[in-house]
Amino acid sequence: MTDLTIRRATADDLPAIVAMLADDPLGATRESPDDPAPYRAAYEQIAADPHQHLVVAERSGRVVGTLQLTLVPGLSRRGATRAVIEAVRIHADERGAGLGTDLIEWAVATSRRLGADLVQLTSDATRTDAHRFYERLGFTASHLGFKLAL
Amino acid sequence: MTDLTIRRATADDLPAIVAMLADDPLGATRESPDDPAPYRAAYEQIAADPHQHLVVAERSGRVVGTLQLTLVPGLSRRGATRAVIEAVRIHADERGAGLGTDLIEWAVATSRRLGADLVQLTSDATRTDAHRFYERLGFTASHLGFKLAL
Repeated sequence: MTDLTIRRATADDLPAIVAMLADDPLGATRESPDDPAPYRAAYEQIAADPHQHLVVAERSGRVVGTLQLTLVPGLSRRGATRAVIEAVRIHADERGAGLGTDLIEWAVATSRRLGADLVQLTSDATRTDAHRFYERLGFTASHLGFKLAL
Repeated sequence: MTDLTIRRATADDLPAIVAMLADDPLGATRESPDDPAPYRAAYEQIAADPHQHLVVAERSGRVVGTLQLTLVPGLSRRGATRAVIEAVRIHADERGAGLGTDLIEWAVATSRRLGADLVQLTSDATRTDAHRFYERLGFTASHLGFKLAL
């Protein structure tokens, strides 16, 4: 497949991004694509923060993928900057066709260009296909990811 | 034990923080407490980023603990803001005495006050004592944490 662009998301991309977040076994229960207000408010915060890189993958004028990259400066590991990948989603029509690889490779290359020393992400323990995918791309499942809802 | 203060770290706290980062089975191999320059540079970046909250716990005028809290706005989970905890360290003299609980409870309360919807962290798979500790504090080990060094 051709004609792929990975670019910064704009407010106009929000409906397409939210539709992808919701079209997922886990996302279906926790997203509200019919209520755009909370997504719009969150987008404004993301856009105002220079350490956030929310991108979409576009093919033939259509949004087919997204992820968010966050740069986090830190003291540990000799003052290493971490790049954190969150909210990776691929449109159903594109799954298995290599777009996930393109997006993660973009994120790794961008992290390196921005001076990060480490790229990290967490993946729900039930997403075993995703785990194999990240390991193929060179990531190591060295950690457990803990969450607490407030 | 009494007289505990949790407060924002200053540049003057860097030697004590770096000493704690290095005094750890994993940290011993990846920190350089005798070379302060990379830590100083990273501290300047942390201090300039309003989404970073690098704190120390001080008892009787002595730095005995640290952690870093990062607020990350996002679209998923209806525009949820995540609070990410990194680089939790407790001075050897204070381990097992409840300071870790105090620090994590401070981080959770601060995350809530700052409007976060979720607190998350990763812990090296080999730190099994830490895993039980986070589960006792209400965290769920629902994810795998992947890392890629650049």
